[in-house]
Order: sequence, then structure tokens, then C-alpha cells
Amino acid sequence: MGVKLYGHPMSSCTVRVMACLYEKGVEFELVPVNMFAGEQKAPDFLAKNPFGKVPVLEDGDLTIFESRAITEYISKKYNAPGTDDLLRSGSPEESIAVRVWVEVESHNFQPVMSPIIYQHFVAPLQGKAPDQALIEEQLAKLAGVLDVYEARLAKAKFLAGDFFSLADLHHFPYMFYFMKTPWAAEAVAGRARVKAWWEEMAGRAAFKKVAEGMKFGEDKK
Amino acid sequence: MGVKLYGHPMSSCTVRVMACLYEKGVEFELVPVNMFAGEQKAPDFLAKNPFGKVPVLEDGDLTIFESRAITEYISKKYNAPGTDDLLRSGSPEESIAVRVWVEVESHNFQPVMSPIIYQHFVAPLQGKAPDQALIEEQLAKLAGVLDVYEARLAKAKFLAGDFFSLADLHHFPYMFYFMKTPWAAEAVAGRARVKAWWEEMAGRAAFKKVAEGMKFGEDKK
Repeated sequence: MGVKLYGHPMSSCTVRVMACLYEKGVEFELVPVNMFAGEQKAPDFLAKNPFGKVPVLEDGDLTIFESRAITEYISKKYNAPGTDDLLRSGSPEESIAVRVWVEVESHNFQPVMSPIIYQHFVAPLQGKAPDQALIEEQLAKLAGVLDVYEARLAKAKFLAGDFFSLADLHHFPYMFYFMKTPWAAEAVAGRARVKAWWEEMAGRAAFKKVAEGMKFGEDKK
Repeated sequence: MGVKLYGHPMSSCTVRVMACLYEKGVEFELVPVNMFAGEQKAPDFLAKNPFGKVPVLEDGDLTIFESRAITEYISKKYNAPGTDDLLRSGSPEESIAVRVWVEVESHNFQPVMSPIIYQHFVAPLQGKAPDQALIEEQLAKLAGVLDVYEARLAKAKFLAGDFFSLADLHHFPYMFYFMKTPWAAEAVAGRARVKAWWEEMAGRAAFKKVAEGMKFGEDKK
């Protein structure tokens, strides 16, 4: 029984886990869940994740949901030599810094970024007009968050320190989609360190691999 | 240099950390931050947490922000005999279950519950009328989340298993305030296991101690 990931290669949370699996060199099977058809709300899927959301990871007898719990599991269990220790488990100071910036992504970045991505890419697919006022409101908040990142990245190459970690990885999916929006250029224009951080991440082999499947916004080019 | 916690005994995120400090028997000094006066946005506080939010923990040379990163730090560092191991670090299966349900609180419970608490308790203090439509919308979502909890608690006494963990602890502040609202009775009426789970948590010595300071809604009794 190998590793099975239930999800969709365009879903941000699925991408977060796929990027981690590629980083750690874990072979896995992607089992597609058609979210537009509501397959994540079907009984057999709800048995895996009662909240009816992708992704879900199965590894042997273990079933795990919530993307950021899955990435932690993968980072611990498959911490093979030659791959980056994404949790910095060898150092109490570094591992708590990773945890702090993982929480920053969850509670400061994601809630601000997610409505922008949803309104710009997903709402039109559902036949709805994007809520421009909401987008503007979120963009103003995002500017504040990115200002903090810019200051932080003046002190360290990555968010948790001078090492790539889960805290950076968790940002990848939303940053990737955001960088396809009309607001990307302005967001990085005055923030050279955020720009360099993003480019460094986007250049990683694992991220190039998942980016191939992230097709939202391709028709907007 | 002892442990210093910057925050406010009525703030949900401060309470989350205080409950953890009491659970682990850690002595600490609470340094009050007057949020209504905006002290969390003052330069000396921004130097501790650039996002300008409480709480912040100082332990010797270490400064940590984000409540759920602080609780993890406390649970690991002060895992004294005679206290519950809130991370279940001895068992890979249990510790990943804790992580899953910690993430559930962050991404399924908190975003649904937080607007209810804000609208009901905080908005009136700021001279605003509570947004009843938003409250209703969130209550409908909360019902769905609590249905999942009810089913989960049929299989285990606590969220991550038959043990009290950080996953349960993180729910305490919002559950405490929610149980003071007019919607509490209905929320637990058909959910005997959620009710029992809440009562078990609320009965813990650490929680009784923090509850003394959680005065929002007292004038509504």
C-alpha cells in the first residue's frame, strides 16, 4: 500500500501537499476528486474527511486530512537524507520559528489572500461576477502583511530563518495564483525581498512540478 | 528572567495561551496590553510582534507570537511529569491526530465562530450594531461543524482521541464565550456529546482559572 493523495492539481490545498511530497521525494498516487461535481461531499469521501474538503492523504492504514497537518506528517515521516528538513527538528529555536511562521500563514496570510484568489479565479467559473470591493479591501490588508514580510526578509533569507521550511512552502499555492493576477506587479514592485523570496521558491524543482497543473487564470493571459 | 505573557485576560488568543500555561503548571507574569487604547500597534509592541496582535510570550531570550505556536512551545518545553502531554509526542499516530484536529480548529472552527463572538460581544463595545445576517450565516455553518464534532466524539472522548490535547484546549476561549450567547442552548441541545465534551473541558482547573477573567457578556446576563 503506497501513498495516495485524494485531491485536485488545481486546488491550493492539494498543491500544498503535492509540493511537500515532491520536496521529500515521496512517490504517491494522485486520486482525482472532481470538486465542481461535488465529489468531496459524497459519502465515501466524507468517510475520509468529514468536513468534505480536499486533500486527504492515505498512507497504509493512516488517513489524514487538513493540508497543513499532512505536510507536517510527510516532513516528519519522510525526512530522508538529501532532502531539506522542513521542520528544522534538530534545533528547538529553529523549529519554533517554523511553527510561528506556519501560524502566520494560517492566520494572517491565508485569510487575506484566499478571498482575492476565490473572487478572481473561481467566482467567474461559477458564473458570478467578482466582488471588486471585497478584492480591494483584501488587497489593502495584503499590503500590510507583505510589508511585514519585507521587513522580516531583511533579517533572514526565508520566513523562519536562513533556511527553506514548511512556513515558506505553505505560501506557495496562493502566491503562485496571486502572481498571475493584475495586482501582482504592484505588490512586489516596492518589495524587492518579497520578490526575491518568491522567485527563489518558484524556482525549486518541486514547485515547478506542481505549477504545471495549476491552470487557473491561463485563459486570462 | 521568567516567562512573560503580553496580552489581555479577555482576549481569546491570550486566554488560549494562559490556559496552556496553567495546564503545564508554568509560572508567568501577565503584562497587560490595552487593546482598546491600541497599545498593540505601538512601536515597542510591534518590535515583539510585527503584526500588532496579542499575545506575545517572552521566555528568556526567546520572543514568540501567534497563540497556537506559543501553546506548542509551552507544551513541548514544559512537559513536566504529572501534567498531560498535550502533543502526545510519545505516539506518532496520536501526535498526528492532535495536529489534524489543531488544524480543524484553525481552519474550520475559528473562522466560523470568530465573527459570531465579534459581532455579539465586541461590536457593541465599539458602538456598532451587531450584523445579525452575518451571525445567522455563521450559525448555520457552525451547526455543520458541530455535527462533525458530535460524530467524532461518538468515537473518542476528545477530538484527537481518548485523551485531552492541545486540539481541545485551542477551542476553549471561543466555546466559553459562545456558551454565554443566546444560541448556546440550541447548539448543544441535540448534541449530547459536544455538550459533555464542553462540560468536561470547562471543569478543568486550568480553565476555571482563566474563565475568571473572561468578562465579555457579563452585563448581558
